[in-house]
Amino acid sequence: MALNKNPVTGMKDILPREMILRDYLIGLIKTTYESFGYTPIETPVVESLGNLLSKQGGDNEKLIFKVLKRGEKLKLESAKTEDDLADSGLRYDLTVPLVRYFAAHAAELPKPFKALQVGPVFRADRPQRGRFREFYQCDIDILGEGTNAAETDLLLATSTLLGKVGFSGFILHINDRRILKAMAAACCVEEKDYDKAFIILDKMDKIGLDGVLREMQESGFSVLTAEAFRSLFSSLNEAEDKLASLEAILREKAKENPLAKAADEIANLRRIMDSVRAAATVDFEIRFDPTLVRGMNYYTGPIFEIELAGLGSAAGGGGRYDEMVGKFTGQNVPACGISIGFERMITILLENGYELPEARKKRAFLVEKGVTEEEMTMIRKEAAAARMAGEDVLVTAMNKNKKFQKEQLSKEGWTEFKEFFAK
Amino acid sequence: MALNKNPVTGMKDILPREMILRDYLIGLIKTTYESFGYTPIETPVVESLGNLLSKQGGDNEKLIFKVLKRGEKLKLESAKTEDDLADSGLRYDLTVPLVRYFAAHAAELPKPFKALQVGPVFRADRPQRGRFREFYQCDIDILGEGTNAAETDLLLATSTLLGKVGFSGFILHINDRRILKAMAAACCVEEKDYDKAFIILDKMDKIGLDGVLREMQESGFSVLTAEAFRSLFSSLNEAEDKLASLEAILREKAKENPLAKAADEIANLRRIMDSVRAAATVDFEIRFDPTLVRGMNYYTGPIFEIELAGLGSAAGGGGRYDEMVGKFTGQNVPACGISIGFERMITILLENGYELPEARKKRAFLVEKGVTEEEMTMIRKEAAAARMAGEDVLVTAMNKNKKFQKEQLSKEGWTEFKEFFAK
Repeated sequence: MALNKNPVTGMKDILPREMILRDYLIGLIKTTYESFGYTPIETPVVESLGNLLSKQGGDNEKLIFKVLKRGEKLKLESAKTEDDLADSGLRYDLTVPLVRYFAAHAAELPKPFKALQVGPVFRADRPQRGRFREFYQCDIDILGEGTNAAETDLLLATSTLLGKVGFSGFILHINDRRILKAMAAACCVEEKDYDKAFIILDKMDKIGLDGVLREMQESGFSVLTAEAFRSLFSSLNEAEDKLASLEAILREKAKENPLAKAADEIANLRRIMDSVRAAATVDFEIRFDPTLVRGMNYYTGPIFEIELAGLGSAAGGGGRYDEMVGKFTGQNVPACGISIGFERMITILLENGYELPEARKKRAFLVEKGVTEEEMTMIRKEAAAARMAGEDVLVTAMNKNKKFQKEQLSKEGWTEFKEFFAK
Repeated sequence: MALNKNPVTGMKDILPREMILRDYLIGLIKTTYESFGYTPIETPVVESLGNLLSKQGGDNEKLIFKVLKRGEKLKLESAKTEDDLADSGLRYDLTVPLVRYFAAHAAELPKPFKALQVGPVFRADRPQRGRFREFYQCDIDILGEGTNAAETDLLLATSTLLGKVGFSGFILHINDRRILKAMAAACCVEEKDYDKAFIILDKMDKIGLDGVLREMQESGFSVLTAEAFRSLFSSLNEAEDKLASLEAILREKAKENPLAKAADEIANLRRIMDSVRAAATVDFEIRFDPTLVRGMNYYTGPIFEIELAGLGSAAGGGGRYDEMVGKFTGQNVPACGISIGFERMITILLENGYELPEARKKRAFLVEKGVTEEEMTMIRKEAAAARMAGEDVLVTAMNKNKKFQKEQLSKEGWTEFKEFFAK
């Protein structure tokens, strides 16, 4: 009765080559974000189910791995529902745990608090190529900063990081939940239907404007609304400066419907874009994207998404969520964050044959069988001295098939060999 | 209905000061072990329950957090036992997952394979001070090396690491499971009772020889056995060289009972001790300890434990386990590993007010309210230039209580301040 060699369904083992890249990237992420004053923190992988199911997680709440109660707390005989069996689960993101953490420790943290998190999250998604049920997220967040200094800092830090990894020419898409609402109001969508409209609008890049309009009508939106969206996006698509165009359109509409007013939010967005462009250290584009929605309904202000060149889907995103801390403490605290697609970046770097910069010199000492203990000690001392001088040195037995052994070690990054023979 | 601010029972949030130390220590661990040729790998946090309950985990198997099955697999109505509810759980150590990993990927890995793992494990222990239900382990293992070159390398690498962290004068206790068996045989313990005897012997440092002998008799061992152990340990305690003394005693005993023979194992242990001493790069002691047992019954040869000066309990340990790979593949592969007490080390370093070496220069730019966007851009550019030059620079709003703000930032490591005022 042999044991099971495979990882559990949908999760994966990290092989050495990928692991070395992951460690390198995590190091680069931490150094870069820390240079902007973000402080690393960590929360438990397990979180209370009450928090995970508090509607902060959107569809992810359907994908929770729940942890079975233990001992006396588990009353198997009388259990009727899953709630009787579990009161904790594996976190599906780093945002809910961060906000809980901030609520618990605010008194001990600087204000504003700039947090940096890198760690695994878990979602019971249908397993598919390149998508796993355990994967790393990497988030930075600023809690306690209500001005757009937060958005600007998050975007500058993240663009600096992407530049250091070697990406350039990427696009930061930016929008604002409040501008989206004004757009919806301008198109005669009722407030209760905003989210429904946004979910459809979010598909613009996949199904195009015609697809969006068709789906809107299929979902019960009026012809009037669909036509208003068509007219709005026709104008925006023709405009050189989409944000200025939208500003003008909404200014007109707001005369009839005050809910269509978004002048302050548009000015705020423009300031963020200008500030990021002005202080940028790498080559990228920041682009107002009126179709950007972001899945989570906890966003309350600006939202962003990162597009890496030639990549179908987003490689990160985030936004402002000023009302989540209040869910824990009763008192709202302004909050804003961005999450970069760690696994996405790893996949791209591996596919592009990314070479680590400044790798240490790696020498393997191959020792023939029969070398005496005295000689072994000399070899080990030589290795220790080389390590002191900054090299990596592997001391290992010389295999019978030395050629194959060297080939294999070369793949692992051992570029030089020294051989020791028995006398 | 506010959400829950606290971490789940028995788990903890890592605050910034500790987190910075943890990141530093993990970096030092990885750099050091990698310089000895250990390759970082990672396995999922979730492992199949069949593997976790395969008797490789000793008492830890009672402490597993099980993960609830999902969707159609969870048949709540017909569930009779926990097995019907869960088929996976959170790993309680890194050894079982490593061996599964090796069994799955051996063809892609160098031989011997030197693995390095750092990551969280989970045990539903009774929560108590300094003990948590989620904690990090840090293991190195060599798979595929049957000679004592493995033990020597593990101990040299680990002592080098401890030295780099700043520990000295620590003690590496060493013994061998086969020597323990020979000692038991020499004291007329029947083979089936070996483990029972070892569990009692393991308490020597807590209850002393008299306590051990009393407990042996209470557990049904004969007076003859208890007296034999008393005589054996009296001789060993008086001996200058315990290993030589034991060698002589067992040589005599082996004449009557072949099971008391351990000459080869003793010679092997001596070679390991001599080799480690000869090539050591820091000041520590390696000491044969005939009472060292180690909890896990999967050990098949040499076993070790690390004692840091002034610490009640062990700060790490390990040993040879040549029969675990076979549980997965049907074919045994020699294996040997050592785990250092990561959380233990963090606790000690924090208590001793450990200062990180070579910290980067950390400057905070405090910006008064009312500074224009143009000035902000200049400030952000100045910060970016300083970061390029290797500094950490925090750009943050100047609080009304500037003195308090600076005090708080100082605690977070920001040692210099530059102030920018609105004109």
